[in-house]
Amino acid sequence: VKAVWFADGAVEVRDVPDPAPDSGDALVRVTRAGICGTDLALLEGYADFSGIPGHEFVGVVEQCPNEPDWEGRRVTAEINVGCGRCSWCERGVREHCEARAVVGLRGRPGAFASHVTVPVANLHPIPDGLEDDQAVFAEPMAAAFEILEQINIEPATRVAVVGDGKLGLVITMVLSFAGHRPTVFGRHSGKLELASHFGGLQPGDSGNDAFDVVIEATGRSSGIADALRRVRPRGTVVLKTTLPQSVDVDLTRVVVDEIRLVGSRCGPFPRALEALGSGRLEPKVLVEGVYPLSRAVDAFEHARSPGALKVLLDPSR
Amino acid sequence: VKAVWFADGAVEVRDVPDPAPDSGDALVRVTRAGICGTDLALLEGYADFSGIPGHEFVGVVEQCPNEPDWEGRRVTAEINVGCGRCSWCERGVREHCEARAVVGLRGRPGAFASHVTVPVANLHPIPDGLEDDQAVFAEPMAAAFEILEQINIEPATRVAVVGDGKLGLVITMVLSFAGHRPTVFGRHSGKLELASHFGGLQPGDSGNDAFDVVIEATGRSSGIADALRRVRPRGTVVLKTTLPQSVDVDLTRVVVDEIRLVGSRCGPFPRALEALGSGRLEPKVLVEGVYPLSRAVDAFEHARSPGALKVLLDPSR
Repeated sequence: VKAVWFADGAVEVRDVPDPAPDSGDALVRVTRAGICGTDLALLEGYADFSGIPGHEFVGVVEQCPNEPDWEGRRVTAEINVGCGRCSWCERGVREHCEARAVVGLRGRPGAFASHVTVPVANLHPIPDGLEDDQAVFAEPMAAAFEILEQINIEPATRVAVVGDGKLGLVITMVLSFAGHRPTVFGRHSGKLELASHFGGLQPGDSGNDAFDVVIEATGRSSGIADALRRVRPRGTVVLKTTLPQSVDVDLTRVVVDEIRLVGSRCGPFPRALEALGSGRLEPKVLVEGVYPLSRAVDAFEHARSPGALKVLLDPSR
Repeated sequence: VKAVWFADGAVEVRDVPDPAPDSGDALVRVTRAGICGTDLALLEGYADFSGIPGHEFVGVVEQCPNEPDWEGRRVTAEINVGCGRCSWCERGVREHCEARAVVGLRGRPGAFASHVTVPVANLHPIPDGLEDDQAVFAEPMAAAFEILEQINIEPATRVAVVGDGKLGLVITMVLSFAGHRPTVFGRHSGKLELASHFGGLQPGDSGNDAFDVVIEATGRSSGIADALRRVRPRGTVVLKTTLPQSVDVDLTRVVVDEIRLVGSRCGPFPRALEALGSGRLEPKVLVEGVYPLSRAVDAFEHARSPGALKVLLDPSR
């Protein structure tokens, strides 16, 4: 089968052996896959990755030996594959299993390929009528919903999103869906307009600069300083950016103003799919292009270009 | 009157004009004052400080025009002096008032002097029978109790304290007082023995390295990395260290493992004084020396020496 291959900072499309699902796995024919900021970070050296990336995807189950009812169904899947035995896995929190593999990120081939295997336990059916170009946002939207699982946002809570890239905009969409009105800070007027379209406020609308909650989604090492500048004493900064290197942080500001920093990663797929299924969310307006797998090199070039929003791959072509 | 004076990294004892209390102030004759890590940081350039430092103290009220009942009473005092008008001050949280002065740290002369003035509202009476050498720990003990105001520690919570200096040991004492058994990490066997005396556990006793809560009290820029190494996924790191410079932090670890960092500063004096008044705490075993004010230069030299614990000044001499 054809697959995207990352090695030493370069992208190529190559033939790889057919995936061989284990007994607990499903073999999924991928119909859409999204290029994420983390994929671009992998290319820059994050996590010393080489292999097949891709962790946001939609497809159709082709084989599922243990639970054949899944065969033929349209699915997306959670990407953390736990050991199944540790205390995290026992509580169903496989995303923190120390021995976990992560599809397209660690120890398991990803979805930038015609087929991918994932454990049956990771599958989620896609609501009828939800098109692939929306459903492919389930993973990043789940990551955005994670914020609402971690911290308490009340109607009166003043929330800011720092970063108007694709993750910042997905977070804006999810917060608005949950009834909040985040103020969005970014550097691109077109994207800030999109943020408004999704229910975000412009900085000028919101009165002052001291927010109760600031969500850092810039993807840049300068993001934390931006976020700390905008949070009030005893406020909370939610961190979403992963970077290949450590970052200089004014921890004295954190101590003196008793700020809370909360790292935030993967989230609840059911909540994301329910929100997408409601029809009230339109993440596909973020899609700037859909490339056949054979043109993956161009797709990554597009995704890496300054200010690019969502770029999808269509591995059927 | 005589006072310690910091300027350009140097310590001297000089004559200063008599303090002139405002109408809402009390004039306190200082009987004991403690040298804190923050005072040493001021000498290194933290907060661009010059003037009279000193924010841990005990004394006797000599004048209190507005509330003369205080005159003659033995007191300690909270150090944050708010504007009295902002929303923080309205809620009684003057330690986060943006316009606050802080005794011995910002905009108000400190207690390394024969006399200090503080607002009457900041005074706390010292329980009868509690000696000055214990009561002078009210401020750092309040800062340790702040941790218990900020985060929830259950009986089963596995807690570590990173740092066996005076702050780490005071925190150990307070956590033990509250019924917890923190594991204490440090570099000095003598201090780790003190930690055990205060109810702390040795690292060897505690099984493994992944703590639910890690309290960073090293006073060093390497402390955050130490703390992150010892906390479990989704665990909490409480930050107590203030430094003159920013610090390199592995924020990707924070994001991937969804760790919470909580900055922690000043705390509740009533809780600290109640604990001290119970007689169950003996912070004075941390006192390595009591110097007359005239020998303040020697006192600071002692306090700065590697591994030093608490050094007190006696401004009556």
